[in-house]
Amino acid sequence: MTSEPIRLGVAGLGRAFVLMLPTFRADTRLRLTAAAAPRAASRTAFRGEFGGTTHADVGALCADPQVEAIYVATPHQMHADHVVAAAEAGKHVLVDKPLAVSLEDGARMVAACDRAGVHLIVGPSHSFDAPVQLARQIIASGEFGSLRMIQALNYTDFLYRPRRAEELRTDQGGGILFSQAVHQIDMVRLLAGGLGQRVSAMTGAWDAARPTEGAYSALLQFENGVFATLTYSGYAHFDSDIWMGNVGELGHDKDPAAYGTARRALSGADPASEATLKARRTYGGGESPAPPQHHEHFGPVIVACDRADLRLTPDGVEINGGTSRGFRAAPLHAAPRASVVDALWQALRHGQPPVQTGAWGLASLEVCHAILTSAATGQIVDLTRQIAAPTQKEEP
Amino acid sequence: MTSEPIRLGVAGLGRAFVLMLPTFRADTRLRLTAAAAPRAASRTAFRGEFGGTTHADVGALCADPQVEAIYVATPHQMHADHVVAAAEAGKHVLVDKPLAVSLEDGARMVAACDRAGVHLIVGPSHSFDAPVQLARQIIASGEFGSLRMIQALNYTDFLYRPRRAEELRTDQGGGILFSQAVHQIDMVRLLAGGLGQRVSAMTGAWDAARPTEGAYSALLQFENGVFATLTYSGYAHFDSDIWMGNVGELGHDKDPAAYGTARRALSGADPASEATLKARRTYGGGESPAPPQHHEHFGPVIVACDRADLRLTPDGVEINGGTSRGFRAAPLHAAPRASVVDALWQALRHGQPPVQTGAWGLASLEVCHAILTSAATGQIVDLTRQIAAPTQKEEP
Repeated sequence: MTSEPIRLGVAGLGRAFVLMLPTFRADTRLRLTAAAAPRAASRTAFRGEFGGTTHADVGALCADPQVEAIYVATPHQMHADHVVAAAEAGKHVLVDKPLAVSLEDGARMVAACDRAGVHLIVGPSHSFDAPVQLARQIIASGEFGSLRMIQALNYTDFLYRPRRAEELRTDQGGGILFSQAVHQIDMVRLLAGGLGQRVSAMTGAWDAARPTEGAYSALLQFENGVFATLTYSGYAHFDSDIWMGNVGELGHDKDPAAYGTARRALSGADPASEATLKARRTYGGGESPAPPQHHEHFGPVIVACDRADLRLTPDGVEINGGTSRGFRAAPLHAAPRASVVDALWQALRHGQPPVQTGAWGLASLEVCHAILTSAATGQIVDLTRQIAAPTQKEEP
Repeated sequence: MTSEPIRLGVAGLGRAFVLMLPTFRADTRLRLTAAAAPRAASRTAFRGEFGGTTHADVGALCADPQVEAIYVATPHQMHADHVVAAAEAGKHVLVDKPLAVSLEDGARMVAACDRAGVHLIVGPSHSFDAPVQLARQIIASGEFGSLRMIQALNYTDFLYRPRRAEELRTDQGGGILFSQAVHQIDMVRLLAGGLGQRVSAMTGAWDAARPTEGAYSALLQFENGVFATLTYSGYAHFDSDIWMGNVGELGHDKDPAAYGTARRALSGADPASEATLKARRTYGGGESPAPPQHHEHFGPVIVACDRADLRLTPDGVEINGGTSRGFRAAPLHAAPRASVVDALWQALRHGQPPVQTGAWGLASLEVCHAILTSAATGQIVDLTRQIAAPTQKEEP
């Protein structure tokens, strides 16, 4: 094994890539050697910042001999073809969540990577957030007895951020199930050990102008008896970040006076001007995230154990014991999302895959579909593709 | 119709009565004319404070000609016999929640009151809280479009307050389902219009020393398409009052340094000393509630409508609109729980029963049982005893 930086090619220089920029700029374990993007402006910006080779299509990126692993950050509905192409070219893959839109595509991707003997990691997702990882360690330690119940909720402006048309079509992987539920599911599965069993859920699609699911509530049971409530609304009314110390999803302090910004910005936009707003949020489009003061988070999460309830915060884990309350900080790394790079590094340089493999991502995707199915049929949906999180290893 | 004060007899001078004391002391629409209680000390205290007649058993209270209506505040498992006895004696009834423990008892009570032509009102419950009533008015007005989703959660120290043995036995109406879930269900049904349809739920009984349900999570669908998530834990770890401005259930400002008081007070108590602690909380036992600074509440409640999410607070309703946030106060009355007296007054003096009739309470009790049944069977439970909240009348 080498300890050389991982030579990473990037497929897609859109919003997901922009959110990874602070990591790519700061983490010396990665070297961005190539990228593929349809927009010339993005490719130019990439060469200007990182050097390396750029390609107009993902096929050429997959064939690039300088590339050791590919970060697939293309739109959801393209993940399957791009991951399979990367695997068939012998490249390891980091694919942004969700793994895929359909379970069939997801299974095809896992099989292709297995066949090719390459690592497939699904991330970033909020299951990589340091407070989530810390909570997982605390649970696994047994310090507070058995895990019993989890409650996760999040109220955001997701549906009113600028969108391309397909991001508002459920069958193309749009709406909150594939973009947002998958975060909550990933976190909750990680905390509960992974083996979901049954799902009962309701969904809401309440804005005819943005005709996709914008809210859901789900009750998820696990094989180990743990149960979890997951609730999400992307309709931009109540903002549950007030219960996260007014820290936003990406770890930045929020200005309470900025209430309603997303909806105001979008007000009066037609599909064309909305696409322009969206393009501004992609690489080379002008926006660039400032360094966060806190960890990323995905809304309030309460984890009930026998002798304490853990409350995740943007800075760590609050330990609500029987007679006293404490706090354990999750230290900030110099580069945000260092745990995503950890996962890639451990897999490619030490042969130790993370929890969030392709099969793990497929299990989380199964829960997304189960929520849709339960809501559509009014039935409880049994899960069949779940896998357990491996027993926690010692820190490397 | 007279406008004389209602001549109220009280059956049971325990904790429920103590919590009504500020109301009974301040609201001139009621006159406490009699009481029944097994403890001589409670009867003496009652005569000392209110005058009137006291009885050792409820049968004698029912026969008391000075009594126009009876407030049944005896232990849950005695509600049925006491309410039926009151009805058969021709007395109107205010019965503390829950209506009864079993649905059969509940139906028997409703039938007895119907047959006798007396009013049966189930209260107090947190559905009478002024912010809940205000939220109901806002929803009914249609100002913010259709109601879509409700989330209610509450994390308390319920299971570690001093208890008599039967309060920790589910079959006797103990545990959180009959004491606590019924509040949440009553509130949510009131906000959603009343007609529950199906329930999916999980419960937890995680403390072998207090072997009854201490937590649950439920997904409740309504006939009108609204769905609600209800979560409760009485295991005294995380305290969700931090999300209610550090105001406790009874409307008092909480001292954050008092974290863990209930568990500490109970620590090392055997059943006998716990019974002594419990007795201290009954009438004449020494404890007396101070006047609250805020309304009572039952934990965070978020109500999603098309154009705003309503967040209930101990002072009113926060209106989270699309682009701005506002607040509507629910003014404090001189006497807390005035809305319970309103209900009694309107029924007995104006012939207008409140929403919270016996049939309403039976419908809420049905949801309690549905939660237990769904958790036990792993199935979704269809509801058959639901009734609608009447269309909102003008304020009298």
